[in-house]
Amino acid sequence: MTAVPPLYLIADRQACAGRPLLDVVRAATAAGVRWVQYREKALTRRARYDEALRLRALTREAGAALIINDELDLAAAVEADGLHLGQEDLPLPVARRWLGAGRVIGVSTHTIDEARRAIDEGADYIAVGPIFATTTKAVRPPIGCDAIRRVLALTGVPLVAIGGITPGNVGEVIRAGAAGAAVISALCGAADVSAAVAAFHRSIAQARATVDERA
Amino acid sequence: MTAVPPLYLIADRQACAGRPLLDVVRAATAAGVRWVQYREKALTRRARYDEALRLRALTREAGAALIINDELDLAAAVEADGLHLGQEDLPLPVARRWLGAGRVIGVSTHTIDEARRAIDEGADYIAVGPIFATTTKAVRPPIGCDAIRRVLALTGVPLVAIGGITPGNVGEVIRAGAAGAAVISALCGAADVSAAVAAFHRSIAQARATVDERA
Repeated sequence: MTAVPPLYLIADRQACAGRPLLDVVRAATAAGVRWVQYREKALTRRARYDEALRLRALTREAGAALIINDELDLAAAVEADGLHLGQEDLPLPVARRWLGAGRVIGVSTHTIDEARRAIDEGADYIAVGPIFATTTKAVRPPIGCDAIRRVLALTGVPLVAIGGITPGNVGEVIRAGAAGAAVISALCGAADVSAAVAAFHRSIAQARATVDERA
Repeated sequence: MTAVPPLYLIADRQACAGRPLLDVVRAATAAGVRWVQYREKALTRRARYDEALRLRALTREAGAALIINDELDLAAAVEADGLHLGQEDLPLPVARRWLGAGRVIGVSTHTIDEARRAIDEGADYIAVGPIFATTTKAVRPPIGCDAIRRVLALTGVPLVAIGGITPGNVGEVIRAGAAGAAVISALCGAADVSAAVAAFHRSIAQARATVDERA
């Protein structure tokens, strides 16, 4: 699998401010985003398949990885680079049996126990959040950067922070030890997607520099 | 694949009048139903997986086939005998590539063109309906038994009639040439599931006898 990059775009049509999802993904990958997750819950399976095929071609062309949210069969059908599972999706071992070791499988976790189980089951990365307040999923309260440190105490599995992450606060999650940040609103909803990607990368580079100084 | 049986139970929790789905399926298979389709659209993927695993054990024990509705990955994950696809699900060729020739793939069709495409793509059976007025899916008007004759003119692929079929009218679809009838309400909602299965089998046997006489 490709290593978890510092910036992970979660492409959600409903967060794209009415712009075509593919335009947002094209702009983000052209600006250097290396992982794109396709998250679509409203369309029919056939429409998701058709759109995922277009994203597969676009990401391959851009040299970016495509991760499919929730749906094992869709991930395999479009030859995605990986699958992201929620706590209410098919079990990770079932997905691993189908996708093999060569493809990325990540898992959303919201508690230490969920993180431990995902790690025990062989997740390639775990998503931890919501770190900050978010407009995308208002179902859970923010857990803050201390949650990143607590989960990192468990494991060497790359941790992806998610939830309300912006160029202004991404440094905090990187300094807390996250391998990367998964971002929906601050990229999909950005007036200038390329500029937003550049702002994230600047903040991430600055945070990493301070981490290196401490090391 | 096993041949299409004359009576095909579509097990839908919401049609079971509050009874556990597994109890309905257990009674139906004990009474001689040989194909059971698991159709569940409300639960989470994980809950569908857990329930499908229980149905897999139950149907295997009863010597019945288990067909999963819509979800290719779920069908494979629980080692179902087949998959039933709607017009808005993954394409049949994608499902065939994953499931192979040994497992049943059926397709819901509502027009001659949909039936022709499903046949061209290698469907093992096609479902045609709604034949009669139905309470389960009130989205389309009944197309009647003439639709069965029109589709049969296309093909040798087994045709399963669906939609408002009862012990009282199942004879009409069998005499029209259907290989079998897919039934939700008249079985899942029956006060006595075993008695309903027996009533269907009597009507089917009578209809087949008259067809044989004509032949």
